[in-house]
Amino acid sequence: MLLNEQRLTEHITAAGLDAIVAAAPENVTYMSGFWALPQWIRRGPQTYVFWPAQEAGAPEIIASTSTLDLIADQQPWVRHVRPYGDFHVEAGFDAAGAVDQRHLALRSLPRHADAITALVTSLQAAGLASGRIGIDEAGFLPGDLQALGTRLPKARLTPASAMLRNVRAVKTADEIERLGAVARIAERSIHASLAAATEGASELDLARAFHRQTVEDGALPVLGCIGFGERSALMNVQPSARKLRPGEIIRFDVGGRFQHYRADIARIACLGEPPAEASRLHRALLRGVERACEVIRPGLRAAMLFEEVMNVVRREGIAHYKRDHVGHGIGLDGYDAPILSASSPETLEEGMVLCVETPYYEIGRWGLQVEDMLVVRERGAERLMTTSGELMMVAQ
Amino acid sequence: MLLNEQRLTEHITAAGLDAIVAAAPENVTYMSGFWALPQWIRRGPQTYVFWPAQEAGAPEIIASTSTLDLIADQQPWVRHVRPYGDFHVEAGFDAAGAVDQRHLALRSLPRHADAITALVTSLQAAGLASGRIGIDEAGFLPGDLQALGTRLPKARLTPASAMLRNVRAVKTADEIERLGAVARIAERSIHASLAAATEGASELDLARAFHRQTVEDGALPVLGCIGFGERSALMNVQPSARKLRPGEIIRFDVGGRFQHYRADIARIACLGEPPAEASRLHRALLRGVERACEVIRPGLRAAMLFEEVMNVVRREGIAHYKRDHVGHGIGLDGYDAPILSASSPETLEEGMVLCVETPYYEIGRWGLQVEDMLVVRERGAERLMTTSGELMMVAQ
Repeated sequence: MLLNEQRLTEHITAAGLDAIVAAAPENVTYMSGFWALPQWIRRGPQTYVFWPAQEAGAPEIIASTSTLDLIADQQPWVRHVRPYGDFHVEAGFDAAGAVDQRHLALRSLPRHADAITALVTSLQAAGLASGRIGIDEAGFLPGDLQALGTRLPKARLTPASAMLRNVRAVKTADEIERLGAVARIAERSIHASLAAATEGASELDLARAFHRQTVEDGALPVLGCIGFGERSALMNVQPSARKLRPGEIIRFDVGGRFQHYRADIARIACLGEPPAEASRLHRALLRGVERACEVIRPGLRAAMLFEEVMNVVRREGIAHYKRDHVGHGIGLDGYDAPILSASSPETLEEGMVLCVETPYYEIGRWGLQVEDMLVVRERGAERLMTTSGELMMVAQ
Repeated sequence: MLLNEQRLTEHITAAGLDAIVAAAPENVTYMSGFWALPQWIRRGPQTYVFWPAQEAGAPEIIASTSTLDLIADQQPWVRHVRPYGDFHVEAGFDAAGAVDQRHLALRSLPRHADAITALVTSLQAAGLASGRIGIDEAGFLPGDLQALGTRLPKARLTPASAMLRNVRAVKTADEIERLGAVARIAERSIHASLAAATEGASELDLARAFHRQTVEDGALPVLGCIGFGERSALMNVQPSARKLRPGEIIRFDVGGRFQHYRADIARIACLGEPPAEASRLHRALLRGVERACEVIRPGLRAAMLFEEVMNVVRREGIAHYKRDHVGHGIGLDGYDAPILSASSPETLEEGMVLCVETPYYEIGRWGLQVEDMLVVRERGAERLMTTSGELMMVAQ
């Protein structure tokens, strides 16, 4: 299961909530196992997960009738479904298959006029019309949020997006498996991309080779910052027709989505022998990430990890190194909690999956970066990577 | 230019607004030409476009300092930029390139503490602190929307997301070019996918071949509903390990994103000779889309187009045919205005790009669908497709 149910329950209890309502796609998929296509590819379509505190009944998915086929096919662990809206299909044929049977059963449920009506009914049915309800506010349309307040005048609605982000910070075994798989897909895609890195190849050529491998491995492209030479110093560099020349740095800050989980890793290569200065700087950045791997353990404050990494990079060769953060969590979202910054209030916990990164951009010259994905374990950091962060030399 | 500036101005004037603020990624890219990576791949990061009514000054992009590299590289037509937040890079190297020069110039602009502070300052600088401001509410975080109201207590903030969607409905020549390109990429990807459609191939095999071609053509995968046999009747079918058998229907409802613009088309194929009943039903659906092509012209009410299409499908073979809509606009979003439904208040205009579709799902049996992309022209419909919607027979 993707959901860390115990952690969710603890947070609901600690906040004194009677229920929580997930609305952002990450939180809906996380809490229910249901991946609703429309809300993942557009903003607007609404899917909710109503999750009552332990004594207050069973959780429910509130979904458009037009997405009941996906519930039937995916069999999410939240089994109660409250559909809204109409969507016409023809039935009455020999629908003997299990998916079709489930689809037809879901279609026989009573339907509500719209998503908010369904949610209000759900809360009322659970006896929570005057309850204290955590609302995943970031996933709601502003008008819907107002309508909810108007239609449940006695309910105490309280923002809960930040809390859900915190719940998601500690991953389950299923999540870690997916994150490991997508990290390795990103590594293989870098490898495939570098096979296209010959003199005169363009950033777009490398990006195409990268995404081709990602798709080949069953993932979908998301992040594909690939830049050459001075363009590697553009932090969000989008691949262009710029051609690769000997001795130039190639920066990858990349990662796709596999079974809904994101990768975000960074590697540096050079066509031919890298400039000595680039190697020297890169070594300092790599030492920073290696230091993180040495010190990571449950109980370590994120701010302390930040200090450790910054100190090592500075000591190992970039005395003026300056960063706002040296990493972040990753999961269904590319920037999950915690944030590894000087002001982070968070503490590492067993099962957190982190992207630890030490990017360094010299405008007009090059951008260098090491970014690894790893799991916080009792015994220390467990890298999800199969490659080192060493600067890779591509044969000319 | 992507922006239909005259149409935007007309809408701002008609609504009596002093300015409009875009915030959703589609509207930011549409109004400014700026594609800000973080807001397109995550929810949370904020980019705004402040667009004053004609007499009230110049439009501005409000962007995180961490995305100024993209502005420098993309050179959006909105030239005034108001950055917020800090993001450290090293300068002082030989940054002779034009992109780097622009990046450094943007980094020398005064920075605001956060996105909302930057936006408030922008509105105040334009003398609009008590103006009537259209707010693209769907793109704001709920807390930010509240903060904006608190910090501009005299401003009259009015929701404008629906208006911007309406502005985007009539495409410029640049937009139509991109939409034509992405429609053809989807067609080529279907072709590539069908090359993998042999007995025993899985839905996942066909999806992989589809996305591989999409990536090869420089687009990114988005929509990939590909289903066999009874699974083709699942309206949002996500590719599975289900294997293809002779005589089975293959339904594609697919389309990627190319230069930020979406495709959404549907085609039906069969491995070997299609069942006579499937051919008969499919012909009726195809006639419906063909009828749309015959009657589409500026001035036609969308509701009338809906009636025409429904009547033809019913007359041509599916007497009980029932649908909520027979299509929608497409552009930066997969569901742009107008909506082609019985209750649609919209009227077709020259330059609208429509997806006209006649899906038909028989649960347990098959799903059939024709969906074409076309442009509303003075002389009638201009199809963006190079293939017909005929049921394709794949050789066994």
